[in-house]
Amino acid sequence: MPDRLNDADQAFVDHLRGLLPAAAFLDASDTFLTEPRGRYRGKGVVVAPATTDEVAALIRACNAARVGVVPHGGGTGLVGAQVLVEGAVPIILSLSRMTRVRAIYAEEGVMIADAGAVLADLQTAALNAGKMFALSLGSEGTARIGGLLSTNAGGLNVLRYGTARAQCLGLEVVTPEGEIWHGLTRLHKDNTGYDLRDIFIGAEGTLGVITGAALKLSPIPAVEGSALLAVTDPAAALSLLSLARDIVGEGLSGFELMSRVGFDFMMETGLMAAPPLQPLPDWQVLLRVGLSAGSDADDALERIFTAASEAGLVQDGLIATTTDEANRLWAMRETIPEGNRLIGSIASHDISLPLSRIADYIPEAARRIAALGPLRINCFGHLGDGNLHYNVFAPKGEDRKAYDPIRKQVSAIVHDLAVEMGGSFSAEHGVGRLKVGEVEQYNDPVRLNLMRRIKASFDPNGIMNPGAMLRS
Amino acid sequence: MPDRLNDADQAFVDHLRGLLPAAAFLDASDTFLTEPRGRYRGKGVVVAPATTDEVAALIRACNAARVGVVPHGGGTGLVGAQVLVEGAVPIILSLSRMTRVRAIYAEEGVMIADAGAVLADLQTAALNAGKMFALSLGSEGTARIGGLLSTNAGGLNVLRYGTARAQCLGLEVVTPEGEIWHGLTRLHKDNTGYDLRDIFIGAEGTLGVITGAALKLSPIPAVEGSALLAVTDPAAALSLLSLARDIVGEGLSGFELMSRVGFDFMMETGLMAAPPLQPLPDWQVLLRVGLSAGSDADDALERIFTAASEAGLVQDGLIATTTDEANRLWAMRETIPEGNRLIGSIASHDISLPLSRIADYIPEAARRIAALGPLRINCFGHLGDGNLHYNVFAPKGEDRKAYDPIRKQVSAIVHDLAVEMGGSFSAEHGVGRLKVGEVEQYNDPVRLNLMRRIKASFDPNGIMNPGAMLRS
Repeated sequence: MPDRLNDADQAFVDHLRGLLPAAAFLDASDTFLTEPRGRYRGKGVVVAPATTDEVAALIRACNAARVGVVPHGGGTGLVGAQVLVEGAVPIILSLSRMTRVRAIYAEEGVMIADAGAVLADLQTAALNAGKMFALSLGSEGTARIGGLLSTNAGGLNVLRYGTARAQCLGLEVVTPEGEIWHGLTRLHKDNTGYDLRDIFIGAEGTLGVITGAALKLSPIPAVEGSALLAVTDPAAALSLLSLARDIVGEGLSGFELMSRVGFDFMMETGLMAAPPLQPLPDWQVLLRVGLSAGSDADDALERIFTAASEAGLVQDGLIATTTDEANRLWAMRETIPEGNRLIGSIASHDISLPLSRIADYIPEAARRIAALGPLRINCFGHLGDGNLHYNVFAPKGEDRKAYDPIRKQVSAIVHDLAVEMGGSFSAEHGVGRLKVGEVEQYNDPVRLNLMRRIKASFDPNGIMNPGAMLRS
Repeated sequence: MPDRLNDADQAFVDHLRGLLPAAAFLDASDTFLTEPRGRYRGKGVVVAPATTDEVAALIRACNAARVGVVPHGGGTGLVGAQVLVEGAVPIILSLSRMTRVRAIYAEEGVMIADAGAVLADLQTAALNAGKMFALSLGSEGTARIGGLLSTNAGGLNVLRYGTARAQCLGLEVVTPEGEIWHGLTRLHKDNTGYDLRDIFIGAEGTLGVITGAALKLSPIPAVEGSALLAVTDPAAALSLLSLARDIVGEGLSGFELMSRVGFDFMMETGLMAAPPLQPLPDWQVLLRVGLSAGSDADDALERIFTAASEAGLVQDGLIATTTDEANRLWAMRETIPEGNRLIGSIASHDISLPLSRIADYIPEAARRIAALGPLRINCFGHLGDGNLHYNVFAPKGEDRKAYDPIRKQVSAIVHDLAVEMGGSFSAEHGVGRLKVGEVEQYNDPVRLNLMRRIKASFDPNGIMNPGAMLRS
């Protein structure tokens, strides 16, 4: 057990001012103290170094003084890893002044960037080089790559391109003792030791600070197409997934399941005038194919549609005829979380399941939730990855606050059943401070023990993002 | 620094006989004491548990008695990780009695297998379930999946499907203290803690023993085709790679560069009567496409051939017209190492480079090697992965033994230049005991320090595969 941490008090900040340029010291504005769901309000002294060496100097000082460090990227995380509420006042280490694309090797399909680069800017830089950076998610206009890697973010393209982990070849990291690991490799194969990269990815800043990343770029698909299909039920959606993959292989780049409730919410909150398919189906799938030159995306979508209709999986559907129409369909998908936010959930979850258990999970979870009352469930997400966002809401017209007392009960139902079925209580959002209890409750105890050993061996003083991932 | 290890002496073996069934004790035959290149002869007492619980009991006993454990899969590794020559007599923990496929979830694309299952058997099991297990390499008839994961093996399909790491969803591992981590997840997304899986993959048995794995299965490409193309030089091969990817995207599943020397060797040793393309080109590429239903592989290969010829990259070539012909081309590629073995190298290397440096590396390395004498170089390999097997031979008619004194000099030239150019001294073969010195010489010191901390925290007594990966 490390010693108690010390406050980043005035004397310590004065000491830092001797080490770092004045421009590194930012006001502790709401940007740095709040998080998207408004659950926590953090505290801390905001320092934004401009270089990796400055990050190292800052961390060395914090380690020497036993002051906690909370790394801060775009602040879009949904599990509170970026805000520290309890304990000693930390340094909030903002990456917002390290935003450069350091180099692009277009012919290799590699881009090297500072950890503070915003995802949308990286996507643009890649496109300007004739390539695609495939990571894509709702918060891409704000989220920074260091945070996206630290949470192993998912998003809309995981089915084809993998999570953030799969988009990363190498890292530059400042360790909890303020040393710099120069691991920005452009190599696709390198078996020369333990896989440090994958320890830091997904570690939520608890083992060090990612300051730079070597990222994989992918070829831009020559032709793309999207279709919105009404499916009988989640089992039919899974069969459709399999069928679509048989037809286009890796060319299937997105496969999202959406429930009727998400559309009800968008209409109820004025986010949507009328649904594209009417009557509104109980379940819809939005899928995208991206194919190489010489292929015909519309033809591929037609074949999927026809085969799925003949198999009785699909009752209705439309194939986007223009890029604008396709973009509108995907924008609709991306609006579902905003509808959820406006309605206000009792509890939100980000679970994953073995693919073959999803069709069992959805009705069984609904049955168990129904035992608590006539709650509304919006279950949607990245079906191809086995990843469901499973959000539970008060009955229409009722105040969600009245249901606060059952929030934990709801989450226990959702998580217990997922884990019972071989699933996970956190698919892509991570642990942060919100799910530290779940880590202890659901994780294999041997894994938990090894996680604690890694933490202790990397960060003996426990300064890095204290209380995130593992209780400090 | 852990205490010195103790010998697995008769008293200890007697103790083990009280813990494990008699069938677990095997003769220490050559299978367990030798390695493919005949560089080392190991020692040890061979114990082959039949279950994970037996592995755990064995490791607990070894840890309590401070006896080293050398895990042994198929014994095909090329860096000596499977043979211990110096120090106390270890237990050789053979996985050869744990060979079951535990379950196949065809609809999910997941197979769960014991660590001792032979790769070729796993490939067959997957095919029988209508899927493909994509890991494929020369030793697949002998290599076992636990060893393949422990070395993060590569092979012929990495370009499309990734290394062994990318084929694995989850692991079951016995820790150095004899605890079992039950991590056989079938999930594609699971952000609930540090990534233990990727720490054990590639750790060469130094952090624990992999006893089971959840493996990804891929769809079988509906149509396949292969072509052998004569290219101007390595730079042209790289341009051809880019061009082929533009045409078939992820459908490009193999891309091998072969030098003239490899063909000379196969003919010189009687392994090949005549080369498929004549006159024999200096450089050839063997490529494979695998496409989904409705695609035409021959047409895709024709388009690649035509475009590459028009661009002046390719001078000659053939497209295999039957599966047999394609198989013969790939068998030819797989015979190159046997030609090397029969000729006998002074030094062999398994390097990787950033793709854009390969065309500079090959002539510059040849220039540096030429300064040592008229040595022969066979440079071939997985070009799409930036991975070259770079083997150096005595001049024709001379005894390689006469060149033993310059072996280290040769390797230093090959490795120094690779590292200078941002490459690696071990792309897919790993470190084992052969390259422990290179790990210390070439690795980032911060990485090396963190590797040592991981080792110490997982294996405080230093019993697991002592002397492999890191000096014990």
